Amino acid sequence: MDQASVAGQMRHALRRLAKAVVVITTRHEGQRHAMTATAVSELCMEPPSMLICVNKTASLHPALQAGAHFAINILQSDHGPIAAGCSGKDKGEARFQVGDWTESVIGIPRLANAQASFVCRNVQQVGFGTHAIFIGEVDQVFVAGTVDPMIYVDGRFTKTGSDA
Amino acid sequence: MDQASVAGQMRHALRRLAKAVVVITTRHEGQRHAMTATAVSELCMEPPSMLICVNKTASLHPALQAGAHFAINILQSDHGPIAAGCSGKDKGEARFQVGDWTESVIGIPRLANAQASFVCRNVQQVGFGTHAIFIGEVDQVFVAGTVDPMIYVDGRFTKTGSDA
Repeated sequence: MDQASVAGQMRHALRRLAKAVVVITTRHEGQRHAMTATAVSELCMEPPSMLICVNKTASLHPALQAGAHFAINILQSDHGPIAAGCSGKDKGEARFQVGDWTESVIGIPRLANAQASFVCRNVQQVGFGTHAIFIGEVDQVFVAGTVDPMIYVDGRFTKTGSDA
Repeated sequence: MDQASVAGQMRHALRRLAKAVVVITTRHEGQRHAMTATAVSELCMEPPSMLICVNKTASLHPALQAGAHFAINILQSDHGPIAAGCSGKDKGEARFQVGDWTESVIGIPRLANAQASFVCRNVQQVGFGTHAIFIGEVDQVFVAGTVDPMIYVDGRFTKTGSDA
């Protein structure tokens, strides 16, 4: 089967790979950047690390490629306006108009009332196809509120339900 | 802050990074392997690809390190016994006692009634700390059932709730 057909099937099937919705933030040459994402994973605990997959055409890719550190902010279920604001046509500073933004000690913006924020030092990058994987060593962790993350599944934002 | 303290905070905060629960499967030298996991991400569409993060001490790590292909099977909310069976003390074939297992054309086991299965060619690996990232180019995609993935959040298995 050709790549385009597989990609179409994969896109459809990925609607079932439920994921917390995060906003990735960074700062580079004085400019803040933010991007709503789901392609995020815990990596390991020794050293404490996570990874993000970022399209090379994304507005924050050049900053990350240049080695800018970043934060992964897990959205709460009622953070829909932030998810929308950080994925729309507005870029750069305009994406920080909605949300209670503050700064980590290493100068990376973070969402003060995120379910959790992981401030990461950008320690390794691996290009693959249209994307790059950035590995971050976790430097600081923040947690806020009761557990109620926003979840993206089947093309919509939802939250967790009853126990399975 | 030292690494152990950050790791402890990170472990606590990751309880909020809601994730679909998957079982990673492979076959190597005639032996089937399966492992319940959440450290999985879509990577890109060109080429269609996904990644998994696997502890170097996991029973299926040697197979993956040797280049064995693999499948990522998204569990349905009622697949708790499979999630438990593929993460307990039983290893190898014993993990296939529960579940409707079949085979992909390239010989990798897959769960016939998984929410979705992505059969991947193991094309690149990146070691980092205690873990390795394996990048898979998606070769085949299967989908079954209505959308109802199992979700791991706050240390428990759950499913999606009402719209956020």
